Amino acid sequence: MLDKTTRINYLFDFYQALLTPKQRSYMEMYYLEDYSLGEISELSQVSRQAVYDNIKRTESMLDSYEKKLHLYEKFEQRTNLLEKIEQSLAEDKSSIELIRMINQLKELD
Amino acid sequence: MLDKTTRINYLFDFYQALLTPKQRSYMEMYYLEDYSLGEISELSQVSRQAVYDNIKRTESMLDSYEKKLHLYEKFEQRTNLLEKIEQSLAEDKSSIELIRMINQLKELD
Repeated sequence: MLDKTTRINYLFDFYQALLTPKQRSYMEMYYLEDYSLGEISELSQVSRQAVYDNIKRTESMLDSYEKKLHLYEKFEQRTNLLEKIEQSLAEDKSSIELIRMINQLKELD
Repeated sequence: MLDKTTRINYLFDFYQALLTPKQRSYMEMYYLEDYSLGEISELSQVSRQAVYDNIKRTESMLDSYEKKLHLYEKFEQRTNLLEKIEQSLAEDKSSIELIRMINQLKELD
């Protein structure tokens, strides 16, 4: 479960600007502030089922945006490459290797 | 006019996955293949006005996505930093400077 939650949190980070205020609010309460569906339902004065449906629909939207724009996937690839570059610098590797990785970074966009 | 066209082309690159097939098709014909509104209207068998409205609406959508996600803006910042890193490597600058720029790259995501 943790992996899925981490993934949703990242997707929310990348795509929250494309959500409605209500979607953002439910997602924040559920995923960031760890409220239960029952608590969100009470606070928002809508049924538990409506909150659940909204959150599930929002998760699908986030997945669909990721399938189209791959922002999270590219972020992971970039982070990975940047860490390798830092390691190469720390180990004082040749700049040829660094330039190769910098070019890989450029091609990611 | 060239600048605006270049910008639209970039925005189209970054966000075309979020457009409908029809929007993508008109944008490709108009911006990439340089068809006139009249030609697109004939080829698509819709009025010139309908093509024009669709393209203008799509341009607004692209601008609105950019205002929310800043993909083009971040791409420019990243490209800029990567070029500086390459230059520093070519000039054999200290790795402290390189690490500073790598950290700036990390913070962009």
